[in-house]
Amino acid sequence: MSERIWTAGLTIIGDEILSGRTQDRNVAQIAGWLNLQGIRLAEVRIVPDVEEAIVEAVNALRARNDYLFTTGGIGPTHDDITVDAIASALGVGVEVHPKARAVLEAHYATRGGLTEARLRMARVPAGAELIENPMSGAPGIRTGNIFILAGVPHIATLMLEALSGTLEGGRPLLSKTIGCWVPESEVADLLRDTEKAHEGCQIGSYPFFRDGKVGANFVVRSADAAALDGCVADLEARLVAAGRTPVSGGI
Amino acid sequence: MSERIWTAGLTIIGDEILSGRTQDRNVAQIAGWLNLQGIRLAEVRIVPDVEEAIVEAVNALRARNDYLFTTGGIGPTHDDITVDAIASALGVGVEVHPKARAVLEAHYATRGGLTEARLRMARVPAGAELIENPMSGAPGIRTGNIFILAGVPHIATLMLEALSGTLEGGRPLLSKTIGCWVPESEVADLLRDTEKAHEGCQIGSYPFFRDGKVGANFVVRSADAAALDGCVADLEARLVAAGRTPVSGGI
Repeated sequence: MSERIWTAGLTIIGDEILSGRTQDRNVAQIAGWLNLQGIRLAEVRIVPDVEEAIVEAVNALRARNDYLFTTGGIGPTHDDITVDAIASALGVGVEVHPKARAVLEAHYATRGGLTEARLRMARVPAGAELIENPMSGAPGIRTGNIFILAGVPHIATLMLEALSGTLEGGRPLLSKTIGCWVPESEVADLLRDTEKAHEGCQIGSYPFFRDGKVGANFVVRSADAAALDGCVADLEARLVAAGRTPVSGGI
Repeated sequence: MSERIWTAGLTIIGDEILSGRTQDRNVAQIAGWLNLQGIRLAEVRIVPDVEEAIVEAVNALRARNDYLFTTGGIGPTHDDITVDAIASALGVGVEVHPKARAVLEAHYATRGGLTEARLRMARVPAGAELIENPMSGAPGIRTGNIFILAGVPHIATLMLEALSGTLEGGRPLLSKTIGCWVPESEVADLLRDTEKAHEGCQIGSYPFFRDGKVGANFVVRSADAAALDGCVADLEARLVAAGRTPVSGGI
């Protein structure tokens, strides 16, 4: 099986994440959405609101992935510099997108009108298209393989919904979880041997400490449903043979 | 003021974060802890459990920051490859640290003994020191300017506590927040002008939508307490002059 694997990079732009003020939600949200599109999130970089830092991350990740997503920095204020930085990374100018302008004019018609600051949200790297945002009017932006989303998670959600099913991907990465009340160190060899015996499957081990006892969840991942089921069944059988009680679906 | 600014990079190692299965907590936790040490988190990279990806991220971030922190991949199972990858990045071998071995022997004396898998947790890049972990026995690792922490957030917390006050830093970055029930687009010029008038201060604008109304929190950051207070007072005065009601401490 030498199936094409589609990958995406993600650049999170925002001092508020790096300062610890805001708990990021977009990595998990975008990762889960990408899985459904058959695309794997390959790398994330979180960078400050500084043009050179954004340019470097964007250029590195767009070159080696099928897609690049960014979140943050597309609002109306002075610290929103994502569009300028990405235009700079692409070596293109910045222009006001006529449709974005029209959308914002309509949105702000009853809210004080389209000021110069608000018009900033209609600016896009030259040649870019829009990604719909039914919530606040200000659209996301697609340019080439780059998807520029809002930083506010529920607005990013709406933009992802608008993109659902429009990106080419491969088979979604499937996963099944088996839990076990066992210190992971006692089954480390068993896990390694099981993974080795099932090509195209990976097993991740995620230990926890709960109710005064240690346990672990073993997550088996594969793009091939039959291979996944075979690996899960084998892992369960090996745990039983070792005197353990696997819990299907995880603990 | 040309004060030295101390920075750290952070590499999060883990397929479970990139798959969306696990919500990361370490970025915010480590960022907040670094602020207290007078060190700024400058960049985060989240990479999969793949040696080349870890090596690239570690080498990029350790070179351009005073410190590099990593989380994840230091357990006993086959997917825990952080120590090998960092040794490879540094061009050194891997060795069993005698003190780590002794700690693990004591910890597992009543728990089935020190198996080969468990002994993996005593492996360190050659020449490294240990970071104490009172919780599970398995220590964190310090080698040069690299700090290798556990991925499980509450164990990472304990390792950070063990490091508190031991790293050289500058003045902590201070921040104060002012909230206001206003669309941020209506005060964008005011924010930009205020920031420009106060050297060494940055203002971030974080909009929200709550109880059917839009508002924003403006976070003023500076390493200089007097400059910070001056900027906050000026911002409040400008908001009042614009007919707005600033809420000290944020909304």
